[in-house]
Order: sequence, then structure tokens, then C-alpha cells
Amino acid sequence: MIRAGIVGGTGYTGVELLRILALHPNVEVAVVTSRADAGMRVDALYPSLRGVIDVVFSTPDIDALADCDVVFFATPNGTAMLMAKALLERKVKVIDLSADFRLKDTKEWEKWYGMEHACPELLAEAVYGLPEVNREEIKKTRLLACPGCYPTSVQLGFLPLLEKGLVDTKHLIADVKSGVSGAGRKAELAYLMSETGESFKAYAASGHRHLPEITQGLKMAAGESVNLTFVPHLIPMIRGIHATLYTQLSHTETSLNNLQALYEQRYADELFVDVLPSGSHPDTRNVKGSNKCQISIHQPQGGQMIVILSVIDNLVKGAAGQAVQNMNLMFSFPEDQGLKMLALYP
Amino acid sequence: MIRAGIVGGTGYTGVELLRILALHPNVEVAVVTSRADAGMRVDALYPSLRGVIDVVFSTPDIDALADCDVVFFATPNGTAMLMAKALLERKVKVIDLSADFRLKDTKEWEKWYGMEHACPELLAEAVYGLPEVNREEIKKTRLLACPGCYPTSVQLGFLPLLEKGLVDTKHLIADVKSGVSGAGRKAELAYLMSETGESFKAYAASGHRHLPEITQGLKMAAGESVNLTFVPHLIPMIRGIHATLYTQLSHTETSLNNLQALYEQRYADELFVDVLPSGSHPDTRNVKGSNKCQISIHQPQGGQMIVILSVIDNLVKGAAGQAVQNMNLMFSFPEDQGLKMLALYP
Amino acid sequence: MIRAGIVGGTGYTGVELLRILALHPNVEVAVVTSRADAGMRVDALYPSLRGVIDVVFSTPDIDALADCDVVFFATPNGTAMLMAKALLERKVKVIDLSADFRLKDTKEWEKWYGMEHACPELLAEAVYGLPEVNREEIKKTRLLACPGCYPTSVQLGFLPLLEKGLVDTKHLIADVKSGVSGAGRKAELAYLMSETGESFKAYAASGHRHLPEITQGLKMAAGESVNLTFVPHLIPMIRGIHATLYTQLSHTETSLNNLQALYEQRYADELFVDVLPSGSHPDTRNVKGSNKCQISIHQPQGGQMIVILSVIDNLVKGAAGQAVQNMNLMFSFPEDQGLKMLALYP
Amino acid sequence: MIRAGIVGGTGYTGVELLRILALHPNVEVAVVTSRADAGMRVDALYPSLRGVIDVVFSTPDIDALADCDVVFFATPNGTAMLMAKALLERKVKVIDLSADFRLKDTKEWEKWYGMEHACPELLAEAVYGLPEVNREEIKKTRLLACPGCYPTSVQLGFLPLLEKGLVDTKHLIADVKSGVSGAGRKAELAYLMSETGESFKAYAASGHRHLPEITQGLKMAAGESVNLTFVPHLIPMIRGIHATLYTQLSHTETSLNNLQALYEQRYADELFVDVLPSGSHPDTRNVKGSNKCQISIHQPQGGQMIVILSVIDNLVKGAAGQAVQNMNLMFSFPEDQGLKMLALYP
Repeated sequence: MIRAGIVGGTGYTGVELLRILALHPNVEVAVVTSRADAGMRVDALYPSLRGVIDVVFSTPDIDALADCDVVFFATPNGTAMLMAKALLERKVKVIDLSADFRLKDTKEWEKWYGMEHACPELLAEAVYGLPEVNREEIKKTRLLACPGCYPTSVQLGFLPLLEKGLVDTKHLIADVKSGVSGAGRKAELAYLMSETGESFKAYAASGHRHLPEITQGLKMAAGESVNLTFVPHLIPMIRGIHATLYTQLSHTETSLNNLQALYEQRYADELFVDVLPSGSHPDTRNVKGSNKCQISIHQPQGGQMIVILSVIDNLVKGAAGQAVQNMNLMFSFPEDQGLKMLALYP
Repeated sequence: MIRAGIVGGTGYTGVELLRILALHPNVEVAVVTSRADAGMRVDALYPSLRGVIDVVFSTPDIDALADCDVVFFATPNGTAMLMAKALLERKVKVIDLSADFRLKDTKEWEKWYGMEHACPELLAEAVYGLPEVNREEIKKTRLLACPGCYPTSVQLGFLPLLEKGLVDTKHLIADVKSGVSGAGRKAELAYLMSETGESFKAYAASGHRHLPEITQGLKMAAGESVNLTFVPHLIPMIRGIHATLYTQLSHTETSLNNLQALYEQRYADELFVDVLPSGSHPDTRNVKGSNKCQISIHQPQGGQMIVILSVIDNLVKGAAGQAVQNMNLMFSFPEDQGLKMLALYP
Repeated sequence: MIRAGIVGGTGYTGVELLRILALHPNVEVAVVTSRADAGMRVDALYPSLRGVIDVVFSTPDIDALADCDVVFFATPNGTAMLMAKALLERKVKVIDLSADFRLKDTKEWEKWYGMEHACPELLAEAVYGLPEVNREEIKKTRLLACPGCYPTSVQLGFLPLLEKGLVDTKHLIADVKSGVSGAGRKAELAYLMSETGESFKAYAASGHRHLPEITQGLKMAAGESVNLTFVPHLIPMIRGIHATLYTQLSHTETSLNNLQALYEQRYADELFVDVLPSGSHPDTRNVKGSNKCQISIHQPQGGQMIVILSVIDNLVKGAAGQAVQNMNLMFSFPEDQGLKMLALYP
Repeated sequence: MIRAGIVGGTGYTGVELLRILALHPNVEVAVVTSRADAGMRVDALYPSLRGVIDVVFSTPDIDALADCDVVFFATPNGTAMLMAKALLERKVKVIDLSADFRLKDTKEWEKWYGMEHACPELLAEAVYGLPEVNREEIKKTRLLACPGCYPTSVQLGFLPLLEKGLVDTKHLIADVKSGVSGAGRKAELAYLMSETGESFKAYAASGHRHLPEITQGLKMAAGESVNLTFVPHLIPMIRGIHATLYTQLSHTETSLNNLQALYEQRYADELFVDVLPSGSHPDTRNVKGSNKCQISIHQPQGGQMIVILSVIDNLVKGAAGQAVQNMNLMFSFPEDQGLKMLALYP
């Protein structure tokens, strides 16, 4: 049994971590911090946790957190980088669900996130927590950068093609759609139900912060530079990401059957990546609340253009679930421990 | 490990049973029937179950079902009553999620359900599966009638008051609202998203089939006849029932504090009924996907009228979850085994 | 052609006024104020108005507003009472969509709205703008208090019964459900799509501000004091209110046919109240975007309890549409001018 | 005043036609047919039309229809082609909202629609009713093929670039998302709220019937063959289409400012195409219920890839509104007569 702390327990990734960890057989949730709600019972804010989480929100405190074996940061960008070093020095493993440690290039990070990085020396050490790519490094690290939700769905969709060098890496397109919980639990007009319900729109079409993170991952998979156009959209629903990926085959002789086999082999041993039968269209509802990524591959009119469809729950495989998957690897627990929950359908 | 069969595995209560039983440590799902989809893999119809349910839909067959320890009927009304007897004779326990065995009065049943009852002799034997009322009978029965979703939410809300004789039983009102999954998985115009999305309406205001079932339960609790006005409504969402119950105190000296204490004591030992702190308003999202019923009590302007708010997930505590809770009791498993899942919030 | 000003043009009632007035043949929208967005084009904030509203938000200014023939207040409570007097003195008619002038009893107002009233002397003069009750007074007034959304739906539903003295006025119940736009355009966590989508709850069950307004209106109709239990709920949709009203007949010989006829006669000449055929259930979608109230009457099991179902669009008949209906009366325009828009179905 | 008939008045495009025509000053709705609901009042099926449509559904009958000046077909594919000839011979103008007359190539039509075309000789005569392209032909025709909803949003988005020859026509991509009303009013499991609510998915990724229609239009605009990848998706909402279009500039010197100016000029005189200010993202809610198409242009990272965002209401500009716009042209009414309704926001 390990002791876990959560910094920033009032956001959606925080409460999703609580939902998962509350039933994890090897984890005790010992500390949950929230500056705004310090002193309040966690289950008073989240009645869905009544009976399973007996903790009071506390002000973030290094000593209290240092008493944990692992600390999750479910905070806005810019917080984890201020506390990670102190925790690591006190032998606490750190899993950051924010963007603070995701990019290797400090300047790139500072450009997209609009602030100075507080501990650039840790960027090199931090391991990017996509188990399907970095499993062995994850097992050994003490500082884990949990991937963003969009980057998880896009990378898992493109990886097999890029690793094999089968496609034109200069014209990749990711048209990605997310439920509104991806915007977090923030009191902003734009995310009111009256504003986002019954409507659909793109945003940040000229450039979104997840672009450099995705590009970094795709470049590593391809072994060469890539050029990606990434357009995020907002879906009038709460949970789920659907990535529609477009790329052109370099060699026209590649058949859809070959591609299907390629994907099935690439992910054969992965517990949380599920390649659907040929001809399928994944539906976000089928992964809602679960840690699965479901993928299918299409070749419209048998042409050069390949369309990959990839869905995840942004709060699970795109955040809290992937964080727990990484924690399991870091503490040598079974990779799917506490993560066997099935999607809530309908 | 017991073997379970599900008759009618393609409806929403059927697939919800599969979601729960797939992870139940003492149950193997052995048979899932569907006339329409016989021969198809269950997880081809329900990709959310890929990897955990390795069964093919079969045509209902008494011999195959008789090989199970328990058979669940997740069928439309009128099917279970045709097969229950044969299964009971072959020592199979039967848990019926339809309405076939819920009423004790055959004529009343035939009036509301518009058909002749095929085995009225079993009505007396069948145990009504509301564990908060009938736990001991449930443990001993071989034929269990699982309560309807509306009746569960209304009875759990009214019971403490009626059992203590505190209210006027002649003017009970249940204004109840349900998500659309309560209508089942049927290709009907009325339940298209274009018809039910972004809209709200009452239906069956002049009389709904669940009325006699609720009245039967309330009468037993009150020890006298009761008069209930029950109006169901359709909410533009998928899962959840919210019952708003109105009743007048017989004695004006009863205080809200007393009522709060009464409810807390009545349900103190119940794992799945959660009385919220005074002043709370339960939200259906906090029980979505879980087997919990959350309740709160209000006394507007300190008057004679008492308002009870009661929420459940219609597919879990209102159907499949309650069925598994009953199964646990019938097979001497821990009552909450396989039912510890938490609500999916947000 | 009259000139209209709107104070508080950025809320949902403000933008709905703009939608309606933009196409009203006798109205020019001359001034739209917003402290926060002063200097911005109205159609930059609301692209749905591009091409029809050529106005820039301005800071509220009495001189500019005094240049109008009518000024609408679509502001939070407490603003109209500060400016109404000055405008009336300058011969401008005032239509207040907030609650500032709805109650006749100053103390009651101050108790429920938690502030001192700035011009109690105007409360007596103000006319409550429910045309179905006060048409003649409305035509003559210069200060109109537009009814709240809940009060409109509840009063129109109860009026015929109360005016005829047919029911027990001591146990009236209004179980009312509203779409989230009723909460206004405010950056609050509680109204995020992630919080209110796919969920249903009651709120303010122990007392809501609209209670005294409704009671005042019902009392006037009944000609005696009334006792109302009013419980509001939040529906996971944007527009629409559904009131389910419960009351007991004083005389059991009243038949449903009589009641149906009573309602049809009471509203026979009303352009915006539509009594549905016997047996109907009104659906909020059928009045979405329109100024109609649709009503039906039920008598479950032919008993003493009568159930009235009443639906409106909270932003139209419950706010901006009713305001324009009142304006039409105050300026001797045809009562339905600019209000002929049909509900948007589906 | 002309007399209009609607064949197939019970679907969503039919009822939307009724909503628009009911208020059109130059049109009387004389005949509305429906085999299934013949004999029923139209406003009994659609209570939103009470008070404005005083017609009873009738069985389709050529004589009755021949008494109209114009007949709209709001029928499934394959019906209009059986009746159009007879009506044309009797001097009735025909506006077909189905796909029967959209393609010029009979073989292509028969391949995608899976049936023999009943009157291929009329395909040449039929005018494709996209007024922004074909206005002069539309004014003169007696047989109008109203464009599909996807094709309208995609063509209006791509046209300016293709007409000027600015982009690579061999790798066009249209990632398009539609609300569920696009699937029509059909009792199918796939469109239940429990199936499509809170979920998002692509469908027909390998080929959708609207592909040849879009390609035909783009080819005409480009003056050369084009290659389009078109992937439709289902949004969990009722109305609205959002097209996200990707294409690469042939000449890198083209700036975003130039493109913005090009679009603004191309659509300067169009009443129903609205090019948003540079940097905008159109939101489907801003055209919900209106006949507008709103468009914006993006050039991510200033590169070669251009992203065009185009939104319409699938039932208005994508169907019934466009049909009435075409009718106005065919009968020399003002092009926006009856079409001035504004989007319903929020």
C-alpha cells in the first residue's frame, strides 16, 4: 500500500484521479490539496465520493506531501514546476498531469506557455508518460510528465504508420474534437451549458499549445521532422476525444489489409489500445469512463489518403487513467490495476 | 463461481448487467440470449465490452439456460412469465428485471399490462427485490421480481415517513423525472435525439404502469391504503431518475431535524442508500453509473409540507445494479460485491 | 417607429430582446448599454445579429437613454430601481425585466432580494406585466414590471381554477423545471456544461425568490390568501420551462371535460396562451423560440387531484417576448407585432 | 400569392419548410402529403404549428398537387423522380430537396443511390440550386435540385479558392460534422438519444453519398478534376453542420490577408453567406434556425495549409431555407423573403 497525494484536487482531472484511486487496492489517498477549499471535506464538494474518500482538502504543504510515496499534480500549468524539485529531493515520485514537463525544448515550452520555466534542468530527466512508447523509461523514472489528452489520441493514432515510415510526414492533419470537460473546471462564460450546448465549433485553428507536444512525439516516432496541421474542436458533450487523422501513403501499393494488420500487431500486447475490426468507426461512448483507446483505419475509395479514427476518454486515457497506468509501472504494480473499469454505455 | 444467463441481452438493462457481471469475481457470464442477434458476438454489438465478454448471442433455449445457476430476464414484459417456471423446476434461480412478477394482485397486473398472466400461481411466491425492505425474504427466494426504476426511487424516498405513520397517506404526490434510457433500446420515433434532446415533457399523466407497483409498496410500508398521484417526465439526458416527493405531516410538531435523523437512522446500515446532509439537493450525476440512491429532505418555509428528493441511476439501482445486489443476497455473496463502482463525474 | 434602449444588453434576456426587436417593424434599437463591453460592436459579441443590429455597446447614460421612447432593463436585480425614476421624469417608458418592481410589498421585496429598495414609491405605480391578467392597466402604464419566468408559467397554469374558486388554495404545489439559460449569462461553476449537462437536480427547495411573486399573483386571482409549495429544478437543456402543477378540487363533481372547457374559454382570446386538446402533454420544444404558453389539464384516475402542465420558453414568454408583448400594448401596436416567430422544431 | 404543395411533410425538412412557409407573405400552403398520417391535422403532429397551418395531411395525389404553383419534395430519395415529370407537364414548378436530380451523371447517381433512375432525361434539365453559383439558371428553371446539407457547407467553403485556382485540387479534405437531425425523422436505433447523446463518431469514412455531389460542384468551380477526401461525423446535438476544410496553397506567396479579402469580395453581394472577421471561429449556434452560412479562413503557422471553417443549419441553408431561397428566385420574389429569421441564441 502506497500513500498518494494529489495537488489540485478540485479540478476534473483531480476528481477523476480520486474516482480511480479510491478503489485501487494498493493506494491510500493520504493528502488532497486545494487552496480555495482547504478545510472542506472532499466528499462535501464531490458527493459521488461519499463513503470512499475520507479526506479533508488541505493547503499545499511540502512536508505533508513529502510523507507520500507519490504526488500527482492535477494543477494548472506552472504549478508543478515550482514544487517538483523539493518533492523529488525528499524521495517522492512525481506524476505531473499538467504540461510543465512534457516538452524537451525549454524555449519551445516558454514560447507556447507564456512563462519562464522554473526548473528547466528537470526537463531532460522527466519521462514522457506514454506507456505504449516509453514503458521501460517510465518504470525507472521518478518524474513523470503525463501526456495531454489531444496528444495521446493523435500519437496513438499515427504511431504505427510513422514508425514504419509509410506516409508523407510533411502533410499530416489532425482534426480533433473534444468534450467540454477538457477545458477544465473553471468559471468561464465560454464553457457554460448555454454557450456550448447544442453547438459545435473549432478553436485555436491558428495554433494550439498541444501542437509542439504532438509534433515532438511524432518526430521521435518517425525519426525525422514532421509537419502537422492540428485543429481542435469543442463537442457539446462532457467526456471524450475523437481524433480524425489524415495522411498520405508514400507507396501506393500498401493495402488497407496490410495497414489493419500493422496496427493490430503494433498494439497486440497493449492492454489499453484496442484496434477495432476493419470497417469499424469508433464511438467515444464506448470508452467513456474507461482507460481504453479504440482505433480504426480507413482508406477512402482505395486511394492514397489514409484516415485513422482514434477515440479516448479525455479524463481517463487522456489524463487520470494514464497517470495511474504510469504510477502502476513506476511502482511495479500490474499495469491495469485499478483500471479495469468498463465504459458506461449508454 | 456461479454461472449466469441473461435472457434479452441487447437492451439497456441487459448490457448494464453485462457491464457489472463482467467484473464480478464470483460470476461467469455463460449464456446471453437474443433472438434478433443470435450468432453475433456480444462485443461486436457492444464494443465497450471488448476484452471482457467472450460470448456469442444465442437463441433462448431452456436447456442451455438450465445449465446456469441464475438466469436474469432483461426482457420486455410478458417474456419471463413464459419461461420462469421451467427454469425453477430445473433448480435455476430466476431474477426478473421486467414487471412480470412485481404485483401480487393478478387482476391488477392484467389490467395495467394488458395481457393474461401466464403463471399467476408464481406471483405469490415471487419476492419483491427491494433489499432495504425485504432483505431476509430475498435471501431465501428462488424467484425474484426486481423493482422498476420509478418505484425504487419513490419507495426509498417515502418509506421512513410511511413506516412511522408521520404523514397524510391520502395525498401523496410523486413528480418523477427520468432520463431517456428508461424507455429502453427500441427503435421508436419518440426517443430519437431530435425528438427528446433539448426538450422536457410529462407523459402518462393520467396513469402509468408503475403506479400500482409503487402503491403496493407504499401501502405495505404504511400498513394502510395510500393514495398517490404519480406523474413521470422525460429528461433530455441518458441516465438518471430524480423523484420529487410531496406529502403533508400529520402532526405539525415534527421538525426538519427530527426527519433528517429519522432518515439517517432508517438507512444507517444500508450500503446503497445515502441520506445527504440537511439542506442538500441530490444531483443525478452523483449516482450515474453507481448503485447508490441519494436522498435529502426539505420542509419549505417550515410548514406542513415535506419535500423529499431522491435520485438513482435508473439502469443501476433502478435495474441491473439492484438485480446484482439481489443476486448477491440470494447466493450469500457480500451484498456490495461487484457493485463498488463510483459515479462518473463529471 | 419608436426608439428603444436596452440597459444590460449582454445577458440572455438582453440578446433575446435584440433578436426580437431587430425585426420589429415599429422599433429602432437606438441604444444598447454594457459597462463591461462598452465600445464593442454588439454583433461582434453576438455574431447571430450580424447584418441586423448596427449598434455599439455604450456605457449607461441617462441622457442617451432619455432620447429613447422606451427603455428595457435586462439587468441583474437592483439596477433598474436606480435609474427608472430619472427616465420616467424625462417621459421615457420603462419596461423592467428584472425583479425590481414586481412585488407590491416593499418589505417582502427587501426580505427576498436582500437589499433596500431604492424607490419604493414606484412600487405602487408599477404595473405587473402579465397581459392575460392586466391588459388594460398595461396599456396605460409608463412603468412596467415584467413577470419572472417561473411565475409566468405557474400563474397561467393556475389562473382559471383560482379565478373560479374551484380548488383548495391551501395546498397548491408547483413542481417546476427550467433550462439553464434561466440562470443567466454568468461565469459560475454551477452552470458549466460539465456540471449541468447529463444531470438533473432540484435547487432552492426550501425557498426561492420567485415564491412571493407567484403567491402575490395567485392570491389576486383567488381573491383570498393561498399557500404554495414551489420547487424549482434545473434541466440539462438551454431553453424552456415546464411547470407541473398539483391542486385538489374543492368539489368532486367537477369533471375533466368541464375543466378543459373552462381553460379553453378563459384563454379563447389570448394570442399567446394555447390550451392543448384533452389528453395532451405539452413539450417545451414546441414553444422554443416562440412567445407561446401551451397548457394541458389532467385528472389522474378521475380523482380529486388535478394536474396542470404548462410550458413556455423562459427567454421569450418568460422574459423578452413578454416584454415586447407589453411594449406593443403600451404603444398601441398590434399585440403580436414582431412576435409571430414559430418554435424551432426539432 | 402562390399555392405551395409539400410532398412528404412529416420529415424534418418538411416541417422546417412549413415553419418557413407559414410566415412567407407570398405563399399559401395548400397541400401537405403524408401516406402514413393522411387524415390527421398537420398541427396535431406538430403542435409548434398550431394557429398558423390549417391543413390536413393528404395522400399524395397528382391532381391535387397540380393545382399548386410549386411542389416541394421533402421525401426520401427515389420518390421525386417518380412524380416530377407529371407535375412539370401540368405546369407546376418542382423543387426537390432529396437527391434525385442533383447529379448530372446518371450512372454515378445509380451507383451511389443503388437504384435505377426513373427519369434520367430530366437530369440534364434540372438546375442545381446553389444560388451563390447558379442564380441566373435558377431564376429560369422549372425543376430545381436543392443541394444536400454537407455539399452546401463544403462547396461554399471551397469555392473562392477553387474558382481562382489557388490551391492543389488533388488533396482536398473535408472533415464535416453534423447534428443528428441530418439523419432525418426515422425510427432507427442508431439515432436514439441514448445512442447518440454524449457521444461522437465518424461514419461512412470509406465513402458517403454526398461525395459525388460535392465533387461535381467543386470540379465545376475549379474547371478541372478534383480529388476530395470527405469524412462525415455525427455531433450529439440536433441542428448544425460544421465543415473543417483543408487544402494546400499552390503558391506560397498568397497571404492570409489576401485570402480574407478574396472571400469577402466573392460573397460581398450574397445575403446568406457571411465571411467572419479574420481570426474568427464560426459557431453552429450562430446560424441555428437561420439561412446563413458563416465562414472563416485560417492559415496555421503561416504555412502552406489553409483551413476553412464553414457552418450552416443543416435544415435551413442545408435544406428548407435554401429551397425557399430558390423558390423566391424562381418566382421573382425578393431573395430573402420569408428568410429573415435570426439564429436562436442561446
